[in-house]
Amino acid sequence: MIRKTSFRFILPFIFALVFGMYNAYASDTGDSHVSFAQTFLWLGIILLISKLGSIVEKFKFPAVLGELTAGIVIGNLALAHIEFFEPMKTDMTLRFLAELGVVLLLFQVGLESNVTAMKKIGVKAFVVALVGVALPFILGAYVVAPFLFNEGTPQQISNASLFLGATLTATSVGITARVFKDLSALSTPEAGIILGAAVIDDIVGLIILSVVQSIVQTGSIELFQLLRIIGTSIAFLGGGLIIGQYIGRPAAQVIAWINNSAGSKLGFALMICLVFAYCSHLVGLAPIVGAFTAGLVLDEVFFKSFDGPSVIPKITSVLGGKDDPIAKEVSLVLEEHSGKHLEEIVEPLGHFLVPVFFIIVGLDVRLDVLLNPTILLTALSVTAVAVIGKLLSGFVAGKGVNKLLIGWGMVPRGEVGLIFAAAGKKLGVVNDELFSIIVIVVIMTTLITPPVLSSMIRKRKLI
Amino acid sequence: MIRKTSFRFILPFIFALVFGMYNAYASDTGDSHVSFAQTFLWLGIILLISKLGSIVEKFKFPAVLGELTAGIVIGNLALAHIEFFEPMKTDMTLRFLAELGVVLLLFQVGLESNVTAMKKIGVKAFVVALVGVALPFILGAYVVAPFLFNEGTPQQISNASLFLGATLTATSVGITARVFKDLSALSTPEAGIILGAAVIDDIVGLIILSVVQSIVQTGSIELFQLLRIIGTSIAFLGGGLIIGQYIGRPAAQVIAWINNSAGSKLGFALMICLVFAYCSHLVGLAPIVGAFTAGLVLDEVFFKSFDGPSVIPKITSVLGGKDDPIAKEVSLVLEEHSGKHLEEIVEPLGHFLVPVFFIIVGLDVRLDVLLNPTILLTALSVTAVAVIGKLLSGFVAGKGVNKLLIGWGMVPRGEVGLIFAAAGKKLGVVNDELFSIIVIVVIMTTLITPPVLSSMIRKRKLI
Repeated sequence: MIRKTSFRFILPFIFALVFGMYNAYASDTGDSHVSFAQTFLWLGIILLISKLGSIVEKFKFPAVLGELTAGIVIGNLALAHIEFFEPMKTDMTLRFLAELGVVLLLFQVGLESNVTAMKKIGVKAFVVALVGVALPFILGAYVVAPFLFNEGTPQQISNASLFLGATLTATSVGITARVFKDLSALSTPEAGIILGAAVIDDIVGLIILSVVQSIVQTGSIELFQLLRIIGTSIAFLGGGLIIGQYIGRPAAQVIAWINNSAGSKLGFALMICLVFAYCSHLVGLAPIVGAFTAGLVLDEVFFKSFDGPSVIPKITSVLGGKDDPIAKEVSLVLEEHSGKHLEEIVEPLGHFLVPVFFIIVGLDVRLDVLLNPTILLTALSVTAVAVIGKLLSGFVAGKGVNKLLIGWGMVPRGEVGLIFAAAGKKLGVVNDELFSIIVIVVIMTTLITPPVLSSMIRKRKLI
Repeated sequence: MIRKTSFRFILPFIFALVFGMYNAYASDTGDSHVSFAQTFLWLGIILLISKLGSIVEKFKFPAVLGELTAGIVIGNLALAHIEFFEPMKTDMTLRFLAELGVVLLLFQVGLESNVTAMKKIGVKAFVVALVGVALPFILGAYVVAPFLFNEGTPQQISNASLFLGATLTATSVGITARVFKDLSALSTPEAGIILGAAVIDDIVGLIILSVVQSIVQTGSIELFQLLRIIGTSIAFLGGGLIIGQYIGRPAAQVIAWINNSAGSKLGFALMICLVFAYCSHLVGLAPIVGAFTAGLVLDEVFFKSFDGPSVIPKITSVLGGKDDPIAKEVSLVLEEHSGKHLEEIVEPLGHFLVPVFFIIVGLDVRLDVLLNPTILLTALSVTAVAVIGKLLSGFVAGKGVNKLLIGWGMVPRGEVGLIFAAAGKKLGVVNDELFSIIVIVVIMTTLITPPVLSSMIRKRKLI
């Protein structure tokens, strides 16, 4: 394209560019495009470091660990007086894209899951979820808490204990789902049980939060509130699945009639995903629960009306017409593996947005919190309890599955725990130290799990 | 999946769902997830109406017209007292996604363009750009303005005239690029000239804005400012192209070594696109100019180190090994058409984000502005001048191209004109009426162009 000799033209350009950028930067006009362009830069940096971080795959670690680590590094450079990346932490557009990323991840996971299979393992998942909520709650509130809280009135101690227990209940399914996805293990029964249990424990956790909040605020439980949450959650999941299956197919046919293209198919599927995520927020659940349900609802069958990949006619003509037996065989393979399936159309969007979520999770990890030895030690014991509680829940999963793998899959805590802690802080029940402890528990469970899970999945050893 | 009999279970679910949602809505907790979930809903609605709008393709109109119209309808439902969609207009996250969408569109257009071809038509594009900036400016500032402005001091009239002229200079390349892309006509010489000219006229427009601003504020032109803008713009475009070509290939090789997958390739390409968009903002140009340059820079050659689509080994084994002559032929076709090419990996992202831009453009169209007959008539005459000025610029494009097509391709005005008008409003030079007039000019040129262009491209009649 450009000959070697043109190298001597580059230097002046570089100087002019750097000078010009500095000038432009110094005389920035402050219009509304500023923050957008800034976010473009952050996004570019996120893409770069997530790809650099994926070098961990060379050492058999899941890609998500590389993304988390890259995020932690970038997020703590301020400790080395590099402040450049600090504004990323408060960029709300990045937060939105991260949320969209995890919604998309759970949608993808839902697409790869299957309603019939989920029904089969439904009871197991339910039992695992209940035990996985009850044990960490009891261990946190009644075993560890007495050692932690010794100042304040009995009422205050009891409230703090309840909140500590509540924050340990909900599994953050993002990490686990990602590891299973990275290792193509989403179709295993273990993955199904973990995903089902994580959705259920989100709901149960929500109920516990409202109960705990009610006790702290009024000293008693509001029955109507409790019934409302249980009722709407069940209605949302059940209703969503049933309505989706009745409405999905005719709606897909209408869209296919209007515009039969891969773009339309993707648009329709994403629309369902986003509307479900919104509705799930509306009933008080996390948007990811809705996205997962949407993925479960959407079935490849709905999209029969859409054409296959455009490459098929081209291949067919090379191979001598569509009645040629080899051409038929090739078309079949192509239909299965080349862009017709919804999962594959959604994939590039996932490549773009999912890493944003995990980088941002890493970004929020404050390494300096780990420097206070008292808090760190306390946090480690709470973490131990948090891990043990979930590990034991795996042992009620019944026969024929790797119980320890299920237990570890339930270990990661995340947004939901932090949301609970934040709610407690607002009520004045959770103080700064307890909040830091909860943050460390989230960090620890998030960082331990991926390597453990991936080595277990790779070895596939059953207990 | 679900048997017919289960229909009788649906109704209670629907009632519970609607009731629960209403309840949850009424008792909304107001946490930070609220606005995110709301934006999920808006995005879902945007995807739905853009797919519904694409029904215009059945009547041989380009899809972009459907998206614009859908946006206009949604954006003006408030006139019929339906206020539900109003918050979409002020959702900054949607604005960001729209900006990301148009950046992605210009990146795609850049990918489909070719540096060598752009060099060939460079001079033609430059001449078209200069005439296309000069004529509308002169017509606007010295032919129409005297009829419009008759109140105020000579200084005020002169300032307003200059700003009116300046707002008519810059082509909004998004609309034109989209029509050419929809009709697979990006490889025509006309498309190349229009795209080149639009990039150049963005720069020239920027220079004119700074000159006009300088005249309004100080009564004279600041030479240093002028030289700085010209210098940095040229340095950015030239430097970006040259540096990109030298650094792009080794950087792509490093990324491919770390992680050789379609996801990595996409991540790397998007990273370049976003960083270029940011840098272009930094030197004072629109982010889309940087995105287009990034698309030009990235060449398929850079990605030789990345594997082909994963379907090829599967197909090859079906056809009896990779040395089989038919298997080789099929692999070639697949490499060309099935997911190896960057354009195809970026496509799903485009399907998702590009419509957001055009729906938002439609959303901003205020139909009630058209109801004031005086303003409407004045705006129509300014529109006529805006169209004629650009049409004439096509006639300096030289031999062998459809001159009228190029002229029409330059007609749409958009963001840049509105940014100029907003700058003038800030300076007190552009009043509310003039602003409304400029908005109508943007609407008219935006809505007239797609059908005209698409019918001309379809007929391909040369002058």
